[in-house]
Amino acid sequence: MTSLSPYDNLTPVTRTAYRARSAAADLAPLPRSVKDDALLAIADALEVRTQEIIKANGEDVERAREAGTSEAIIDRLTLTPERVRAIAADVRDVAALPDPVGEVVRGSTLPNGIDLRQVRVPLGVVGIIYEARPNVTVDAAALCLKSGNAVLLRGSSSAYSSNTALVRVLRDAVGGAGLPADAVQLVPGENRDSVRELMRARGLVDVLIPRGGASLIRTVVEESTVPVIETGTGNCHVYVDAETDLDMAVDILINSKAQRPSVCNAAETLLVHQDIAAAFLPRALDALAEAGVTVHADERVLEFAEAAGGTKATVVAATAEDWETEYLSYDIAAAVVDSLEAAVAHIRLWSSGHTEAIVTTSQAAARRFTQLVDSTTVAVNVSTRFTDGGQFGFGAEIGISTQKLHARGPMGLPELTSTKYIVTGDGHTR
Amino acid sequence: MTSLSPYDNLTPVTRTAYRARSAAADLAPLPRSVKDDALLAIADALEVRTQEIIKANGEDVERAREAGTSEAIIDRLTLTPERVRAIAADVRDVAALPDPVGEVVRGSTLPNGIDLRQVRVPLGVVGIIYEARPNVTVDAAALCLKSGNAVLLRGSSSAYSSNTALVRVLRDAVGGAGLPADAVQLVPGENRDSVRELMRARGLVDVLIPRGGASLIRTVVEESTVPVIETGTGNCHVYVDAETDLDMAVDILINSKAQRPSVCNAAETLLVHQDIAAAFLPRALDALAEAGVTVHADERVLEFAEAAGGTKATVVAATAEDWETEYLSYDIAAAVVDSLEAAVAHIRLWSSGHTEAIVTTSQAAARRFTQLVDSTTVAVNVSTRFTDGGQFGFGAEIGISTQKLHARGPMGLPELTSTKYIVTGDGHTR
Repeated sequence: MTSLSPYDNLTPVTRTAYRARSAAADLAPLPRSVKDDALLAIADALEVRTQEIIKANGEDVERAREAGTSEAIIDRLTLTPERVRAIAADVRDVAALPDPVGEVVRGSTLPNGIDLRQVRVPLGVVGIIYEARPNVTVDAAALCLKSGNAVLLRGSSSAYSSNTALVRVLRDAVGGAGLPADAVQLVPGENRDSVRELMRARGLVDVLIPRGGASLIRTVVEESTVPVIETGTGNCHVYVDAETDLDMAVDILINSKAQRPSVCNAAETLLVHQDIAAAFLPRALDALAEAGVTVHADERVLEFAEAAGGTKATVVAATAEDWETEYLSYDIAAAVVDSLEAAVAHIRLWSSGHTEAIVTTSQAAARRFTQLVDSTTVAVNVSTRFTDGGQFGFGAEIGISTQKLHARGPMGLPELTSTKYIVTGDGHTR
Repeated sequence: MTSLSPYDNLTPVTRTAYRARSAAADLAPLPRSVKDDALLAIADALEVRTQEIIKANGEDVERAREAGTSEAIIDRLTLTPERVRAIAADVRDVAALPDPVGEVVRGSTLPNGIDLRQVRVPLGVVGIIYEARPNVTVDAAALCLKSGNAVLLRGSSSAYSSNTALVRVLRDAVGGAGLPADAVQLVPGENRDSVRELMRARGLVDVLIPRGGASLIRTVVEESTVPVIETGTGNCHVYVDAETDLDMAVDILINSKAQRPSVCNAAETLLVHQDIAAAFLPRALDALAEAGVTVHADERVLEFAEAAGGTKATVVAATAEDWETEYLSYDIAAAVVDSLEAAVAHIRLWSSGHTEAIVTTSQAAARRFTQLVDSTTVAVNVSTRFTDGGQFGFGAEIGISTQKLHARGPMGLPELTSTKYIVTGDGHTR
């Protein structure tokens, strides 16, 4: 029997991936109780070793401050004892969730007597490429371990000390619980080359999930030969139909846009049916102004804004670029459309396919909009802000997939699994 | 309202994809009856226009003959009235299958009263890149239409006349049934550049499925920015456990290897537990010899072959390369392993992850093998030849995915769909 392996000549990055692959093979058949014990050990260790984590985090924060980083980003980077406790609590919540592995997705006895079962299995090795927030390190590791996967963590260099300390704690806890410590690893190297190597580690890494800004996601999607799950770009629309409850429409618009503008499920474009524009737009523009939102208006919305005169809204003329912009700020593009079909056509042309809401009292319009719009989530008389794993009751979320393959919309634990078929017979041949 | 589109400056290939995308939007909301009518119209048209199809096919066959193509390949390329009738019958079978679109995959009422439903929707535009057999043209188009997808067909240049004639018939029938003819299109251009453009048409094409040889599949997997479903490479293993029924083991081995060696679910490697080797190998080598199979043996199998002396088997020494070879011929690699775990380790190292069979009378061994082996299909006392959409009762098969994302194993109609969430409320805000 040979011993030559297809995995000779490994680099530091691919060696990390290779070790993750071995760990994944050990993790896959483990029952829930073993995985849960490891998660609880992680939560305990985070609390016991909080000082060590915060000290390392302090180095990152200091470096960020010296580099003149904005206070908002420094706030997202900073860990406090309270925040570490909250992260530990989240890990315990993940432990309490049902284990997706082993679920029989489909099963039957074939006409020839063979028993066919399709069962959930872990994906194997999951690579997460993410930006500054160190809580993602623990969060992603917990979700991957719970679903029986090994995880390769590639955080940003700005959180390198924090991530190194966190992964040390995670690995100690995982190893202490009798699982292979290599199930959780930081990808070595701080520069772009290590990301590039990770993206080329097809066969060693089963999926890459980029979490962060649009440019990071685009790079991974375009350059990776490892399968990618695209997450998080949200150019979400609110369409106010001809027949609508005006109060509800204003509420949903303001909540979708302004409750938390920096997230992917916030609305970025308002589309208004021409028959309701005269009744709706003056109220909507006032409410948007009150919420501090700048409106990037097409010609017809501009006319209403000018006619209203006394409106407090900040309204500027929209350019084509506005229709495809994910502002993530107190800005919204707005247009009047001739019909529901015109709204759908606008969405089809410009949307990133995340979430589109219709506000309507018409059952026919609701039905038609949900049939015609093809996004991860179509919301009827519901704010776009509900597209979220927590809100959907998944208990956890590794990201929101905006692609159509494998997973679409908020991804919970089942989305971190694949399946295999088990066929059992009594010597069946063809 | 603007009219500038992100889809200006299209090339012939991307224009084809753009038209498919528009057609897909029209197809998505269609009910089953409309799609089935189009499929039945296709079946009728294939029968009515058989002569036109066979004439075009004759041109391809003549060209292939002039180029000195082997008779086996010419046979696969050739269409006869009988074969066209069989293709039409297959289309009617697809029409009779249930429609996956609209199926509610998950549904609940959230604590806040929002109704959540996850429903199956078409993927959108499916690109199929395939080799010489013109029946794939019709087969793939029928499966895509049934599941509400538009299809871009990129066959080999050796079948160009046949494919052109078939797609003309398909488009006429689809258009005649009131569906957009652009739901079925041949990708223009006969050279590699058009394949390359198709692989870069991210945003216009939702998924690419390469069907054909390993090098075609590798190229698409490595170069495509459009998501790919990898299909069909099968380095399948038969493992004969220490405790086994020898007759059953010989039957399954011979059926797995020799019933149809040219297909991806045929076995390529035999692994034998050392405790059963002396009892099993002489019989297995005889049976393989009788079936005309050459055995590429490791040292321990070679010893048994030499000891047997009188065996009729053709046995040669294996090299490391044999462990990863998908012969697709009357050849099999063979090794003796120390244990079930050693068999699993061998499979983990060398398998393409398609199908692995164990032959055992031990419940513990069956359970352990199915837990540890991570391939699309794990077969217990069943020939590897059963990994097949038809055998699994899916009614149709677009290919066998050997990847973990989206679909794994035989892919039927549900695997040609994605999902979307529909959330319905009464003005819910956060």
